[in-house]
Amino acid sequence: MSDAAFPAPLSLDTLNGLDRNGFVVALDGVFEHAPWVAQAAFARAPFATVEALHDALMAAVRARPEAERVAFVAGHPDLAGKAARAGAMAADSISEQVGLGLDRLSDDEYARFERLNGAYRARFGFPFVICVRRQTRDALLDAFEARMLQGREAELSTALDEIGHITALRLVERVSGPGLPKVHGRLSTHVLDTHKGGPAAGVRVELFEVGISGRALLRTATTNADGRTDTPLISNEPLRAGRYELVFHIGAYFSARGLELPGQGLPGQGQRGPSFLDTVPIRFGIAEPEGHYHVPLVVTPWSYSTYRGS
Amino acid sequence: MSDAAFPAPLSLDTLNGLDRNGFVVALDGVFEHAPWVAQAAFARAPFATVEALHDALMAAVRARPEAERVAFVAGHPDLAGKAARAGAMAADSISEQVGLGLDRLSDDEYARFERLNGAYRARFGFPFVICVRRQTRDALLDAFEARMLQGREAELSTALDEIGHITALRLVERVSGPGLPKVHGRLSTHVLDTHKGGPAAGVRVELFEVGISGRALLRTATTNADGRTDTPLISNEPLRAGRYELVFHIGAYFSARGLELPGQGLPGQGQRGPSFLDTVPIRFGIAEPEGHYHVPLVVTPWSYSTYRGS
Amino acid sequence: MSDAAFPAPLSLDTLNGLDRNGFVVALDGVFEHAPWVAQAAFARAPFATVEALHDALMAAVRARPEAERVAFVAGHPDLAGKAARAGAMAADSISEQVGLGLDRLSDDEYARFERLNGAYRARFGFPFVICVRRQTRDALLDAFEARMLQGREAELSTALDEIGHITALRLVERVSGPGLPKVHGRLSTHVLDTHKGGPAAGVRVELFEVGISGRALLRTATTNADGRTDTPLISNEPLRAGRYELVFHIGAYFSARGLELPGQGLPGQGQRGPSFLDTVPIRFGIAEPEGHYHVPLVVTPWSYSTYRGS
Amino acid sequence: MSDAAFPAPLSLDTLNGLDRNGFVVALDGVFEHAPWVAQAAFARAPFATVEALHDALMAAVRARPEAERVAFVAGHPDLAGKAARAGAMAADSISEQVGLGLDRLSDDEYARFERLNGAYRARFGFPFVICVRRQTRDALLDAFEARMLQGREAELSTALDEIGHITALRLVERVSGPGLPKVHGRLSTHVLDTHKGGPAAGVRVELFEVGISGRALLRTATTNADGRTDTPLISNEPLRAGRYELVFHIGAYFSARGLELPGQGLPGQGQRGPSFLDTVPIRFGIAEPEGHYHVPLVVTPWSYSTYRGS
Repeated sequence: MSDAAFPAPLSLDTLNGLDRNGFVVALDGVFEHAPWVAQAAFARAPFATVEALHDALMAAVRARPEAERVAFVAGHPDLAGKAARAGAMAADSISEQVGLGLDRLSDDEYARFERLNGAYRARFGFPFVICVRRQTRDALLDAFEARMLQGREAELSTALDEIGHITALRLVERVSGPGLPKVHGRLSTHVLDTHKGGPAAGVRVELFEVGISGRALLRTATTNADGRTDTPLISNEPLRAGRYELVFHIGAYFSARGLELPGQGLPGQGQRGPSFLDTVPIRFGIAEPEGHYHVPLVVTPWSYSTYRGS
Repeated sequence: MSDAAFPAPLSLDTLNGLDRNGFVVALDGVFEHAPWVAQAAFARAPFATVEALHDALMAAVRARPEAERVAFVAGHPDLAGKAARAGAMAADSISEQVGLGLDRLSDDEYARFERLNGAYRARFGFPFVICVRRQTRDALLDAFEARMLQGREAELSTALDEIGHITALRLVERVSGPGLPKVHGRLSTHVLDTHKGGPAAGVRVELFEVGISGRALLRTATTNADGRTDTPLISNEPLRAGRYELVFHIGAYFSARGLELPGQGLPGQGQRGPSFLDTVPIRFGIAEPEGHYHVPLVVTPWSYSTYRGS
Repeated sequence: MSDAAFPAPLSLDTLNGLDRNGFVVALDGVFEHAPWVAQAAFARAPFATVEALHDALMAAVRARPEAERVAFVAGHPDLAGKAARAGAMAADSISEQVGLGLDRLSDDEYARFERLNGAYRARFGFPFVICVRRQTRDALLDAFEARMLQGREAELSTALDEIGHITALRLVERVSGPGLPKVHGRLSTHVLDTHKGGPAAGVRVELFEVGISGRALLRTATTNADGRTDTPLISNEPLRAGRYELVFHIGAYFSARGLELPGQGLPGQGQRGPSFLDTVPIRFGIAEPEGHYHVPLVVTPWSYSTYRGS
Repeated sequence: MSDAAFPAPLSLDTLNGLDRNGFVVALDGVFEHAPWVAQAAFARAPFATVEALHDALMAAVRARPEAERVAFVAGHPDLAGKAARAGAMAADSISEQVGLGLDRLSDDEYARFERLNGAYRARFGFPFVICVRRQTRDALLDAFEARMLQGREAELSTALDEIGHITALRLVERVSGPGLPKVHGRLSTHVLDTHKGGPAAGVRVELFEVGISGRALLRTATTNADGRTDTPLISNEPLRAGRYELVFHIGAYFSARGLELPGQGLPGQGQRGPSFLDTVPIRFGIAEPEGHYHVPLVVTPWSYSTYRGS
């Protein structure tokens, strides 16, 4: 677990052996300001899997009457809100928002979030809750707009789903054991050179997040002897729903292989000019933060294909 | 012929019937300031094809001793030079440079061309000649640099090759008839939807020229019932060597087909978020201005392939 | 029209100019034993297109009460029936059945058709009619079985549709003019070599019909400089619904190009043994006899793809 | 090790601890009738890896003068020879030939092998030796013919290479430990459905060996939820060099998914007839018995691609 910021996780066995008070203390902070959630779930201990534990916690929330569910949702901070800005909120919520850059909003963006938060709260009577670790900034704004169009009941259910994502992520960082809920996704690639009939080694790959206002480099990698990157492009965390671009430096790869391609001669020695393929961009969207997105490139100097693989 | 700026072309038959003087007058301007070229070629009339006529003209040039060939090349204007700027040169050369935007250089760019022209002339003793209608601006600068590295003899030969391209283009606009020299290229595309098993109609396609400093939209088109654009993306002119990007608006196409794809549900109704494919960019280089580049897209909502077709 | 066995076709103009009697005589044999069809359609002359003429003829049939439509269908010979065997039927029907080999049935096959014909006639009260020129033998047997399961009304309508196909084929061989009904299909291929980035010339291609009991070679062809066959694999006739296989001799093609591939060395000089790709088979079904099936092969020594193109 | 027919393997550590005599006894039968090989290699004990042990054994052979190397090769039985037929040879050689069916030759085939063996022995003075477990029967005959064309020195070297393959296979079944020589290959597949954007589960796959005289079914498998077969199609043994065919039952898979495809309607309800793709055959050659051949199928109802993957 790369992103665990906690002391060594508690084992599920240990948790199952605690008394009610110890159980509630051990899970403090998984559900913000709501120790009653763990108190209610304790009745169903012991738990065979961490996922069963999380299910019991969420079931305890969903069993409450609507007014209490609303009050529970209302206990969460506004997204990009004053509290987050002031650094005065519960550490977990704040640090989760930091990853998305929501603490580095420009004044204009801050004002936009303020307006959206206000409109949302006026419509539904509770703050907008979303698991920010599962979203790019653009996807988050899209979700904001889409959810504003829902009825109140559907939206309350969506808000609880999001709290389910938030708390599942916290739980796997807090409790170790069998049957972890699936909270992480994976993005991987693979470059096959069907000109030579084998993996393409040494291809530089860049991964960008693509937003309305431009694209941001997330990481670079180089393919190994098997045509893959040594580690997945993204793993051990949820994939942020959003749009991405992979750029494969295929021209440099084929040049390094020493291919003499038409279109690359010197002046006076046949054609000169650019090769047919140089950098190959693949733009794709991610909609399932816990999914596995395998995006291979099957390539020759004159062709390529890609697909959502597995 | 889209770019013909001349009176109705002369037929090859008519030309073959002219006397020496008439022949030279009819071809005035094809070779700048060099009526002797047509005078020499006249000895080989009549010509079976326009290409044979052009070959005879170029052979007349290449038959001269080196000093005369150099003088002949030296009769051409500097690229982006003072004369072009001042509008004081032969109309043909000037109008050909205008297409590339070489008359709209910023002061910095103008200065760069001046420096390159000066360095070139200092090295070779004649001006840099290139058929600008076969080059993007970036490719032209690349060619400038590559040619500076050649020996003088090879470079003189390259300059004559370029004059061959320039004059062939002029000739097909001046003389009609059988056996035209191949001076035009073609760029075409085709979108196949292998999800439904047929051509993809109504796909918006954008063609960009890609340069070091950004990309410029050249044209947009929409595929017809056969998945093709009604006219080729480029035709009836040389393709400019350089880098390009086609962008296919695939997401909008599949949405219009009414496909319900994972990743496109409403909140609370399964996954929401972006579709896997939305706009599909294909970047490619063109090295053969007289070639046919067919760049198809074979696509489903989850995969695509492209290749240099025919 | 490759399969025209008639005198030079009559022009639609000429036909439009005939009186009622001449019109009926000119169309004699298009609808077997049923001059009343042409008599009824004459009322709607003149016809702007050959297709409009055919529509008028079929509308005249469909306008009759059911008993007459049944009698009309009953005027057609049994498929592969005694009459066909004896050569005693109307020449057109017989010659059309000959193409499918239905006159060369083994005794077992003949007995099977006899049984099917008998069962069909017992069920519906009219003979099984199908446009045999649109079917492989296996597809014909499948259609026989599928149609036996239909209700009588639906089946009568299907029988008339088939007579529509039969008579449209006859009409385009009898009458020339604008707006021919679409009665022919086309099967074509194209081989692209994405190892070298251009069409694959000189590839031997075999086309087989694939049946339950084996496959039969229909034709062979070799790709030309554009990677296509000089003529479509099938054209100027309906495609027979059924299953096919194209076999591309890719190994021989790449060997002829002189590629040194792994897996092709001599003993003691690296790997020996077969190349990865040698003959590439593509099996596909045809369901639309009037459709265009374009089945390209995009290939390197290590990969290939195909799709239903256009 | 699926094909181990020996008592539990000896560990390399144990072997390294044996004295000269024990070492030779432990390796008895790896090199047929040649205990001197193990005796000579013992001088280089202990061995860090099993591969180092095998290298030392082969080096001991290659260090001998030619006459002794020839005598060593001559100690091997004729392929498909009388001794194999009579069952009178060393058990290992016989059981290895059995896998290829060389004990079940027809009289004609037996006569052909006899002739080849005789011609070979007449040309080179030693019997034809080949590691039959790395060959299909057709590949073996091809190798026979190719090797007959070599010079004697090259052929002796090839024979020793083959003995290297034979003995490496025996050694990994006899000795366990680190650094096993690579003697096994792997054939795997993967079916991706790019119509739905995920692995294709439940696709029946058949693997055939393709010979001159027909094809033989080697195994069938069905893809699991990840689109792969639960175990590789071939593993834990050398791949036999030769030609193969994979057949993917794609039509049944898409029908089971409930797709309504054109070309599959009932009579009278649009087109009827066969689907475009039904069984997809992929023919390929294997030249590297110790290689990994990954042959995926990326497929929609209207398209597919394959390539040598990794």
